Amino acid sequence: MNTVSEAAKPSVTAPSALAHGVWSPAVTPLQADLSVDRQRYVDHVSWLLRHGCHGVTVFGTTGEAPSFSVDERIEALDWLIEAGVEPDRLMIGTGCCARADTVRLTVHALASGCHHVLMLPPFYFKKVSNVGLADSYRDVIERVGDLTLRIYLYHFPQLSAIPINDDLIDVLLSDYPQTIAGMKDSSGDQANTTRWLQRYPQLAVFPGSEAFLLGGLRRGGAGCITATANINPHGIRSVYDAWQRDDADCDGRQHSANAVRTILEKYPLAPGLKHVIAHSREDSDWKRVRPPMIALTADDGTALLQSLESIGFSM
Amino acid sequence: MNTVSEAAKPSVTAPSALAHGVWSPAVTPLQADLSVDRQRYVDHVSWLLRHGCHGVTVFGTTGEAPSFSVDERIEALDWLIEAGVEPDRLMIGTGCCARADTVRLTVHALASGCHHVLMLPPFYFKKVSNVGLADSYRDVIERVGDLTLRIYLYHFPQLSAIPINDDLIDVLLSDYPQTIAGMKDSSGDQANTTRWLQRYPQLAVFPGSEAFLLGGLRRGGAGCITATANINPHGIRSVYDAWQRDDADCDGRQHSANAVRTILEKYPLAPGLKHVIAHSREDSDWKRVRPPMIALTADDGTALLQSLESIGFSM
Repeated sequence: MNTVSEAAKPSVTAPSALAHGVWSPAVTPLQADLSVDRQRYVDHVSWLLRHGCHGVTVFGTTGEAPSFSVDERIEALDWLIEAGVEPDRLMIGTGCCARADTVRLTVHALASGCHHVLMLPPFYFKKVSNVGLADSYRDVIERVGDLTLRIYLYHFPQLSAIPINDDLIDVLLSDYPQTIAGMKDSSGDQANTTRWLQRYPQLAVFPGSEAFLLGGLRRGGAGCITATANINPHGIRSVYDAWQRDDADCDGRQHSANAVRTILEKYPLAPGLKHVIAHSREDSDWKRVRPPMIALTADDGTALLQSLESIGFSM
Repeated sequence: MNTVSEAAKPSVTAPSALAHGVWSPAVTPLQADLSVDRQRYVDHVSWLLRHGCHGVTVFGTTGEAPSFSVDERIEALDWLIEAGVEPDRLMIGTGCCARADTVRLTVHALASGCHHVLMLPPFYFKKVSNVGLADSYRDVIERVGDLTLRIYLYHFPQLSAIPINDDLIDVLLSDYPQTIAGMKDSSGDQANTTRWLQRYPQLAVFPGSEAFLLGGLRRGGAGCITATANINPHGIRSVYDAWQRDDADCDGRQHSANAVRTILEKYPLAPGLKHVIAHSREDSDWKRVRPPMIALTADDGTALLQSLESIGFSM
C-alpha cells in the first residue's frame, strides 16, 4: 500500500475542534415504500439540533445505516445540507463492508463540509486480524486522501462482531495522528470506555449511551453519542450543561436520564424510539422500519409508552 | 407489503432444473490496486467449468463478495457473460445488507440470464426475528418481480450470524414455492444438512463442503458448493461421477477429496486457495486479497504447499 504521509499536505481547512457533547444518531423516517422520508428526516434532525443535541450522527446503527444503499445515504445527507443544517454539527456514518462504498460515503461527507465521520470496520468476515483491519482503514484513508477527515472508530462488537482493540488504535494513531479523532464505544462496557479515556487523552472518546455521560465527562470524555437522544435530547443535554456549570444537580439529572434509557433498553432501539416519536407527534407513519427490523407490536408499544408515562417522561 | 402471487404470472423462461452437482464459489483475482483482475477472473472461472465444476458461484464468501461494491460485482459478472460463460452454469451471490443492493444485483443477474441466485440474509443487525427476515426476502422477491428467479438461501451462521431456520424456510416456501429453490448449508453441521434433505426433498440442498458430498448425495442432496473446488475441481467431480455411475470407488474418491479439504481448512480459505493457485500458475499476483483479509504469511504458504505435496496433491 502506498502511504500518503499526513505531513505531506497542509491541513488548513480541518475542523477547529474534535466533536464533543451530546450527539444523537438520528432514526430514519420512512415513507410507505420504505424509502427515506425527506421532510420528516430534515424536520427530525433539525428538531434534535434545536432541542439540545450538540450534533447528530447521520446513518449510525440507530439510523439503520446498513439497510440503506450508498446512493440512499448520500441523497439523505444532501437533503440535510440543502435544508441548511450546519455540516459541523453532523457526524456521518460511512463504514461499509466494501471499501469503495466507505470511500464514496466519506468523500461525499467531506465534500458536504462534514469532517466528522463514524467508521465501522468491515463487518462480514469474522476473526480477522488487526493487520487486515488496519489495512482496511488505511486503504480508505489513503484513497480519500483528505487531511481534514476526522475518523471516530466505531466499536460495537455486539453488532459488528469486529472489536476495535488498543493495538489497532495504536497502529492507526501512529500512522494518522490527525485523522484518527476518537472512538464511539457502543460496547456498553464502561471499564473499556474508562480505559480508553485514560489511554487516549488526546482523542474524543464517546460512550454509546448516556448512562456513562457524567461518569465519562468526569474522566475526560467527550460526551456521548446515544440513541435515546432521539426522544430525550433536552434531558441528556441537561446532564452535560449541569456538569459544565459544575452544578450540584448533575447527578440527579443523570439519574433522570438513566430512567428513560432503562425503559427504552427493554425494546429494540430503533423501533422503540420510532414508536415513541410516532406517539408524540401523532404520526403513525413514524413507526416504519426497514426489514430485518420490525415495528413494535401494539402490546409492546403500549407497554413502552406506559412505562415512560409512569416516570413522568414526555418527549 | 403488497404481494405478487407467483400464480399471477406465467413462468415461461424459468430454468428447466434446479442447480445440481459440484459448484465452486470462485475466488476473485485482484490487480495491484486491488480491483478485480478481469482476465484472470474470466480465465479462472472458465478453467473451473472446464475442469469438473458443474457450475460456479460468483461472489460468494470465498469470492470475498461483501468486500466488493455492487458496481464492481455487476461489472465482473458482465465480464464473464461477455467472455461466453453460460449463464446457466453460474449462481450469483446477491445478498447484501441493503435491500436496494440485493435487488440491483438480483435484477442484473436475471438480465444476464442467470436465474440461480445465492442470497445471504441482511447480516448487520443481530438477533432479528424470522418475521423481519421473511420480510427482507419478501421485499426483495416482490421488488425483483421475476418468476424465473431461483433463490438458494445462504445459511452461514459463523459469518452472517443470521441462521436460516426451518420456520423461515417454511414461510418463504409457502409464499414462493417456485422461487425458493434450495439452500446452501455452510454451517458445517451435517446433521442440519441431513435434516434439511429429509424435510425439503423438493429443494436443492447443497452442503458448503465436499466433506458431505457423497453422504449428501446418498440422502438426496444436490451436490456441494465448496471453496476447495477452486483448486480440486476434478477430484471433487470424480466423487460425484463415481456416485452417479454407482462406482464402488466412490468412497475412496471421497476420502481423497477430504484429505485435500482437511489441509486447506487449517488456513483462511480465500488466502489459502489463492496461495495454491499462485503457486500452481507461477503467478504471485494471484495471492492478493482485499482487506480485512490478509495473504498467507510466507511460512504458512510454504507449510500449506508442503502439506498438499505430502499427500500427492497438485492442482
